[in-house]
Amino acid sequence: MKAWNRLSHVAVLLFLVALAGVRPVAAQDALPSWNDTAPKKAIETFVARVTKQGSPDFVPVAERIAVFDNDGTLWAEQPLYFQCVFAIDQVKALAPQHPEWKDKEPFASLLKGDVKSVLAGGEPAMVQVVEATHSGMTTDEFDQLVRDWLATAKHPKTGRPYPEMGYQPMLELLAYLRANGFKTFIVSGGGVDFMRVFSEQVYGVPPEQVVGSTGTVKFEWRDGKPVLVKLPEIQFIDDKDGKPVGIHQFIGRRPIAAFGNSDGDLPMLQWTAAGSGARFCLYVHHTDAEREWAYDRQSSIGRLDKGLDEANARGWIVVSMKDDWKRIFAFEK
Amino acid sequence: MKAWNRLSHVAVLLFLVALAGVRPVAAQDALPSWNDTAPKKAIETFVARVTKQGSPDFVPVAERIAVFDNDGTLWAEQPLYFQCVFAIDQVKALAPQHPEWKDKEPFASLLKGDVKSVLAGGEPAMVQVVEATHSGMTTDEFDQLVRDWLATAKHPKTGRPYPEMGYQPMLELLAYLRANGFKTFIVSGGGVDFMRVFSEQVYGVPPEQVVGSTGTVKFEWRDGKPVLVKLPEIQFIDDKDGKPVGIHQFIGRRPIAAFGNSDGDLPMLQWTAAGSGARFCLYVHHTDAEREWAYDRQSSIGRLDKGLDEANARGWIVVSMKDDWKRIFAFEK
Repeated sequence: MKAWNRLSHVAVLLFLVALAGVRPVAAQDALPSWNDTAPKKAIETFVARVTKQGSPDFVPVAERIAVFDNDGTLWAEQPLYFQCVFAIDQVKALAPQHPEWKDKEPFASLLKGDVKSVLAGGEPAMVQVVEATHSGMTTDEFDQLVRDWLATAKHPKTGRPYPEMGYQPMLELLAYLRANGFKTFIVSGGGVDFMRVFSEQVYGVPPEQVVGSTGTVKFEWRDGKPVLVKLPEIQFIDDKDGKPVGIHQFIGRRPIAAFGNSDGDLPMLQWTAAGSGARFCLYVHHTDAEREWAYDRQSSIGRLDKGLDEANARGWIVVSMKDDWKRIFAFEK
Repeated sequence: MKAWNRLSHVAVLLFLVALAGVRPVAAQDALPSWNDTAPKKAIETFVARVTKQGSPDFVPVAERIAVFDNDGTLWAEQPLYFQCVFAIDQVKALAPQHPEWKDKEPFASLLKGDVKSVLAGGEPAMVQVVEATHSGMTTDEFDQLVRDWLATAKHPKTGRPYPEMGYQPMLELLAYLRANGFKTFIVSGGGVDFMRVFSEQVYGVPPEQVVGSTGTVKFEWRDGKPVLVKLPEIQFIDDKDGKPVGIHQFIGRRPIAAFGNSDGDLPMLQWTAAGSGARFCLYVHHTDAEREWAYDRQSSIGRLDKGLDEANARGWIVVSMKDDWKRIFAFEK
């Protein structure tokens, strides 16, 4: 077929596409769970600026990197980080194989159902629990444990499986950014082996775009097959100053947009903001005691204190869950 | 417009697309620098098997992960790993600021041009050189040093800039896999901060898909700006057993295809082969003393000994550069 002939077909195609009423994506509301308040407008304005060819703020697709904290930013984190609930459930499941736990803290308290005194023990106690329940098995076995837990465990307040505890407005935001050429990453203090089990299904973020805290793994042979065994050793904590470090080590490119909810995310937002060109930093502020939880400066989980001051001082976007979100969870009426 | 009306337009569109003679990509030769020998056929057969909808070996796009070693697999590694050449050039450039190096090994020998005795010092000497030249600056500064070096340094044998030392058949293979829905990753013992500077330009592999050896970095503030400072401390060596570990930590998904050239890649190929479903493992064998170099079992750089035995025993593909590649470098006549 001659080239000009093919071209005329292309013209017919374009004409028919126009007839068929195909509309650009932007014309629809990609963020229906957001109220028409300042944060939604700021997001849309930023996306328009960096995606418009010829705009002074245009950013090529390859550099459209957006990073999201997980706990408290993409899904809830109250009354306890969900991964801690998983770890506690694992302690109960593993207890028959560990008779010594009955007399050993923090396991003894946990087995008596006394989570509070374990939490009072702070990070060292929680690290012990995580190490004991996140090691000793192969990576494939751990993956299956998390999968089983996600399929059965229910959130104590809502009664919903944990994968349903994602924030609907943030799920829409992730999809909206991806539809505009962004690559969305999770950068979270949570364990990477835990998050990767559900990140694709819940957030549409593939495992290779999840950065998190990592434990040491060892390559070895079992029954003639190579396996990776999880060791009781935390290798990297992806929190606070660790977040820009994790971004550098795992992504290798500075994001142009960053989303968090706590002081632990502040260095990630600072690192993102310090790049040249258009930048976008946003804090999710937990202000809705009815539909979710209300907490910030005094909370032991997800404390937002310095971050809130800095966001206000620098004009970063602060989302009030109460005022700016029409819906918080997809399961709401 | 009514739904059935829109549907009839779609039918017309499909008919016109058929008329316009749109052909599948596979009809062209995507691997023109490969001879029509067994390896090329094996690659094409594998890609056809995993991409054909309905085939028992079909693999969804999200799981089409392919991993490539870099030195000796994607670009040359003789007479010395290119990153070592960079480090040595940096020692020379930095010498005026380090008068003590004149009397301190391995720097003293290097500055006298005696690379051989440094190499005789093995890994400890080379680690000293790498640490001294890959730390003390911010990540942005290091990035610029590598960029400048790549723009000016020339390979001692070919006289070509190092970015031109990539293997043309492998560049075609990377593009061919990507055109078939694969996500291509580099998994190399080389420093990740070094490779990420050129991976996108040379291989079309974005920084976030490069896994390599990493040094520790520290987040700090300088002149009111956040920076990441490279410390003289190797954090993770992505070689041998470290390769499957790196794949797990950085990608979080088992590859279905792996490409290497040395015993250092063997655990990566074993890990890939041990997954269920269709798998592809390939070794590049350096057999061409004229157009490139010929080396394998006895070489200190890129030794291929156990890997060659295992490849032969397990029926993995072994590419003879001499027999299977029409062209090695793009700059060849």
